[in-house]
This record gives sequence, structure tokens and C-alpha cells, in this order.
Amino acid sequence: MCRQIYMDNSATTRPYDEVIEYMSCINKDIYGNPSSLHRKGIEAERIIKKSRVSIANSINADKDEIYFTSGGTESNNFAIRGYLNANKHSGSHIVTLKTEHPSVLEVYKHLANMGYSVDFVDVDSKGVINLEQLEKILTQDTSLISIILVNNETGTIQPIDEIIKIKNKVNRDICIHVDAVQAFGKIKLDVKKGGYDLLSVSSHKIHGPKGVGALYINKKRKVNAIVFGGGQESMLRSGTENVPGIGGFAMAAEITYSNFIENYNKVTEIRDMFVNGLESEINGYKLLSPKNGLPYILNISFENVKAEVLLHFLEQENIYVSTGAACSSRKNIHSHVLTAMGVQKGDIEGSIRFSFSSFNSVDEVPIVIDALKKILPKIKITRK
Amino acid sequence: MCRQIYMDNSATTRPYDEVIEYMSCINKDIYGNPSSLHRKGIEAERIIKKSRVSIANSINADKDEIYFTSGGTESNNFAIRGYLNANKHSGSHIVTLKTEHPSVLEVYKHLANMGYSVDFVDVDSKGVINLEQLEKILTQDTSLISIILVNNETGTIQPIDEIIKIKNKVNRDICIHVDAVQAFGKIKLDVKKGGYDLLSVSSHKIHGPKGVGALYINKKRKVNAIVFGGGQESMLRSGTENVPGIGGFAMAAEITYSNFIENYNKVTEIRDMFVNGLESEINGYKLLSPKNGLPYILNISFENVKAEVLLHFLEQENIYVSTGAACSSRKNIHSHVLTAMGVQKGDIEGSIRFSFSSFNSVDEVPIVIDALKKILPKIKITRK
Repeated sequence: MCRQIYMDNSATTRPYDEVIEYMSCINKDIYGNPSSLHRKGIEAERIIKKSRVSIANSINADKDEIYFTSGGTESNNFAIRGYLNANKHSGSHIVTLKTEHPSVLEVYKHLANMGYSVDFVDVDSKGVINLEQLEKILTQDTSLISIILVNNETGTIQPIDEIIKIKNKVNRDICIHVDAVQAFGKIKLDVKKGGYDLLSVSSHKIHGPKGVGALYINKKRKVNAIVFGGGQESMLRSGTENVPGIGGFAMAAEITYSNFIENYNKVTEIRDMFVNGLESEINGYKLLSPKNGLPYILNISFENVKAEVLLHFLEQENIYVSTGAACSSRKNIHSHVLTAMGVQKGDIEGSIRFSFSSFNSVDEVPIVIDALKKILPKIKITRK
Repeated sequence: MCRQIYMDNSATTRPYDEVIEYMSCINKDIYGNPSSLHRKGIEAERIIKKSRVSIANSINADKDEIYFTSGGTESNNFAIRGYLNANKHSGSHIVTLKTEHPSVLEVYKHLANMGYSVDFVDVDSKGVINLEQLEKILTQDTSLISIILVNNETGTIQPIDEIIKIKNKVNRDICIHVDAVQAFGKIKLDVKKGGYDLLSVSSHKIHGPKGVGALYINKKRKVNAIVFGGGQESMLRSGTENVPGIGGFAMAAEITYSNFIENYNKVTEIRDMFVNGLESEINGYKLLSPKNGLPYILNISFENVKAEVLLHFLEQENIYVSTGAACSSRKNIHSHVLTAMGVQKGDIEGSIRFSFSSFNSVDEVPIVIDALKKILPKIKITRK
């Protein structure tokens, strides 16, 4: 088989081999229900306990502040709806960014229909929150703010410390929910120092299995369950625990954070080499990702190009990339993130997301740049 | 290692080896996000499509009536809340059984707090629904009935055809939700012939992976999403699909249903041999499961015995069983199922669930009966 270059790691990642192996072992040998009283149950419960400690350690939380879910989307839904359900008297005003992931945006839109007063804060041309606007709209009736720490389409990092300072000036009780799905494993997260109340993470973005995530809930905050049943996860998330998935997630987090600096440096080198390659070899493109964004994500708009056409030409060269976020790429709608950043329609249409991980290597970069050099002239739309 | 006899298959099952192998392959090679436009996405999407057809075929549904979830608990939550949210004008009266699984009961209790009028129908001493009572309480305001087809603690099978006839006499529009988590793979289910509107199934009860389930939604019924986000599963269940889990679930369903009769006959033989063994070798017990119940579950109360003590003595012999349902076994509360059946407190306290699968074999039965013979006299509480 030809060499495959997978640069769509913000959509999902290939699980670590060790994680795949570990999950197989759990499936074969530790298949009990963690709620069962016998040894097979205890063994399974031990995996969950150990995994909870791993995930807690990775963000400096206490272990009883970690609740496993079926993924980042459920974590975001759980955080927002669970918090508001448990804190009905904390206010009816809720705030988020225009550039959030749909698993936050759609929940906020749903809540707007249910009577909440919702503000979607603007971002600048690099996708960074308008802090003045935030400060103006917060009131004593504001209950919750959801912020995507690293944007999934551009890698823009929000100034979360500033955001928290501003909300604390207005009212320390306002709950801050951080969507850290794209940040987890790529930024050092410290929920205690950061002052976060709720924080969502996902497994399959860090070479862990799909179908698993977690929500951190600061023990000072009360959150209600949104899924009812057998009362697993301290009554907050019912359903038989996905033991192999949770074990695999924790192992992926351990591997990722134990190689944190090497990974970060490697990916930064790849990103920088990529940007340099573009500069010296390619004409007619714009970097939509900010220079100080997370190096794992590079959003580039190619002039007079239909991104989907470029994507398929790259695919012919066994290079896998994305047009915007995976979950909206089939819907043929313009990126709400780039639109909020004020990117022109034509530039949005030519935008490709290259997203890296430690599985990529620097020697892939010239191959991709060469492919772009070859493909772009063929697919340029000539404007008359 | 000593021979292990796992008779707790209603709590969870060991995945088929083929399923474990298949999931590893998917994790290694088909790791794309099904929403991605490139080949890696298409390959992953193909697994989902194929799996949807498998699950649909297993219950005679159309493929676009199957929605994948994170498990039976989410399926039940989704069915009930999703249906009621989408059909607010269909009535404010909802009905279920006293012996439902907590993932139904707790949702109904929550809805009672939200203003729904809720009836919990009684069962007889074998756990079978009181049909006269059902008929009396149904009104033109009844919107939804949830019925557990096979009870998870006793194997009691509800007369679902009778229930549907009764509700159709009152109002054909009343929606019927079948919790088939314990029935799936063990009873032939035909959603079309059966006239079911919603039907919940789970993977890990049929030697598939944990963390996956599905909800069948009759295409004539409208159900709203309860998890919002990227719009996967035709906008009804957002979140990146658990591709290996879904693939593994479908394979487990295929294997299970392709061996349906052999499995059923084998388990029936095990159950019958078990009952005969008890009759000839053991004194002082009561069969709590009905004789015409599903052979996969055998609930037995041992006189003057604390079930948890017996469970741990059996564990010493590498025999794994359960006291009631796994999810409530740690809570030290009396089984709501046996209580609703009118079982005496003492008998509930001595109740053990043996639950079988095709992984058990008839030669395990004499070993378990011998173990019971040895253990029971040691642990009998002598009443003074």
C-alpha cells in the first residue's frame, strides 16, 4: 500500500496500538459489569477507578470530580443542561461564543427556545473573543458561560484567564464551562489553577477509542444528571460503564501527557515547516489560523479553489485533510466559525484544515507541499 | 487457572472473540470519522451503514429506523423523553410497569416531577402485568406506554400482544415503547408484526461491546433528539459515532441471531437441568422466575440465606452470579421487581439470579448444584 498521510487528526485519530491491545485484553478477561458484587465486577470496577485517577491527574482534578460519558458531545450537553437544571435560580442569562462547536451551540439554541436569554459573543478576525463585549453583556442574572478553549477549525486559543477575570468582576458565582475537547492532551490543563467549573474532554481526539469522554465537575458546583437509570457514576451518568473504552481513554491520556513536550515540539516543527513550505512554494493562499494558535491545527484558504475539490485531489495522493469540521462537512453549509471571523465567502470556500498529531512526521510535509504544488494549478477556477 | 463458571450474563457478557478481533481491526485500519469526506471517512461510514442494516434485519425494521446510542440506558431515555418532547400535544398521561428497569422507571419518576401524570401498573406473583388494571387506566390523554419485554431480574415475559391490543382499543395513537434489552437475541423480535413504535436494545447483553446500543423508531413516529450537536444519526443523536463499537455490536447481533435456535435450546437445557438439579439435590428454595419465563434467567430464593453471602461463597468456587440487577446490587436496597411481585422480604433477601448464555454449558450445572449443596448448609441462618 502507498504511504498514507493522515492530517485530519482534529476530526479523529488512530488509537495507539497499546490502547487497542489493552482494550482487547479488557474485553477478553475483564468483561464483568462494574456494578456486580463478585470478582469479575470488582476487577472491572478497578479499571474504572484507575482510569478516573488518570484522567483526574491529567487536568489536576480530584478523582471524584471526573464523570465518564460517551464522548465530547455528551460531556458538553451534560455540562450545560445538567448545570442549568441544578441551578434554576442562578439566572436565566447564558453566554457563549459564536465559534463554539455545535455540541455547545445547538444546546444554547435549544435553551434559547426554552426561554433562556442567550448571548453569542463575537470574535475578531483571528477568532479571539471580544472581551469588551463580554464584559458589557454579563449581568447579575448571568448563570453560565461556555467557552471553547481551542477552536476545532482554526486552533484559535481563547484567553480563558482574561475571560474568568472578567466574569469574576461581575459575579464570581457565574459558572464557567470549558470545552477542552481540542485542547486536551495538547495544552497543559489545570482546572484548579485555571478556576474552571466544568470541563469537557474526549478520548478519540488523543488516540483513544471513540465513544468515550469525560466531564470534570468542580466539587463546589452542583450538576444534575441528564441520563437517568441505574445510578452509575455517582448517580450522575447512568448506564453500564464502557469499561474497555474508559480504560483505553485513560491509557491514551497517560501516553499523550507523558509525551506532552515531545509531541508539542514535533507538531510545532511540522506546522512551521508546513507554513515555510507554503511561503516558498505556493502562491495564492491565506493562513486563517492565527500564528499564536495551537500548532496542531492549520486552516488555510487557497485562492480560487473549491476546498472539496482540493480535498479529493489530495485524497488521490493518499493525503487526508478536511474542509472545516468533520461533523458539518457533509452539510454543504459555510463554516460558522470562519463566518464569525469575517472571512470572505470565497475564502471560506477555499479553506482546508490540516490537523496534526504526534503520528505525523516532518518528512510528510514536503510530500504534501509537492502535492499542493502539483494539484493547485489544475483546479484553480479562472475568473473571467 | 481454575475453571470459571460465569452465570451473570444478564448483567453483562463476555464479547465474542470474533467481535473483539473485528473491533481491533476497525481501530487499526478504519479509524476515520464517518463524517469526513475522504476515503477514511467513507470507510468508517460504510461500517455504520452495514451495521445499521444488520441491526435492522435482526428485528425486521427498516435501516432508517435504527439509531445508534451509547447503550440500553440511553436508548430508553431517548425513547421516552424524545417521544414526549416531540409529541407534547399527544397527552400528559404516561404508563409503565412497576417492574421496569431503572433506566425507564427513573425517567418516568422524573417526568412525574415535571408534571406528567404517571401510572405504574401492578404485576402478579410471577411478574406479569395486570391487564385489567392497564385497561382501566388508559385514557384519551395517554401518550406513551413503556413495557420491559423480558424482565432483567426474573426473565418474566410480558404479554406484549395483549398489551398492544388493549391500548389499540382505547387509542391506536398511544405510543408503545418496548425495552427489549434482555429480550434482544433471545426472543425473535419483529417490530412490524409486533406493532412496536419504539424499541431499545443493547450490545453488551449479547456478547457485543459495552457502550453501544440502539433505538428503533417506527418511521410513523416522531422523536426529538435529547443530545444536541453535530447532527449525526440523521440529526437525532449527535456525537462522533463509535465506529468499532457499532461494528462490534452488529457482528454480535449477527452471530447471536444466526445461532438463535441452538442458543435457545442449549440455554433451555441448562435451565431445565438446573431446575431438576435443585429439585433432586437442594432443600429449601423457591423458584421466583416463572416456569414460562425466558430460560436465560433463573431467579431462585434460598431459604434462610443471605444472598450476598451465598454469592461470595459461590465466588470462592469461581462461580459468578448476581443478587438482583447488577446496577442496584451495590445499593443495598430490596429489589423493586420482587417487591412488586409480592415476594416476602426474607425471600427477597435470599434471592440469587443465575443468568445463562450460549457460553455456558450443561456440564457446568452439576458443578454449581454441588457447590450449592456444599455451601448452603454452612451459611443457613438458624432462626431461634
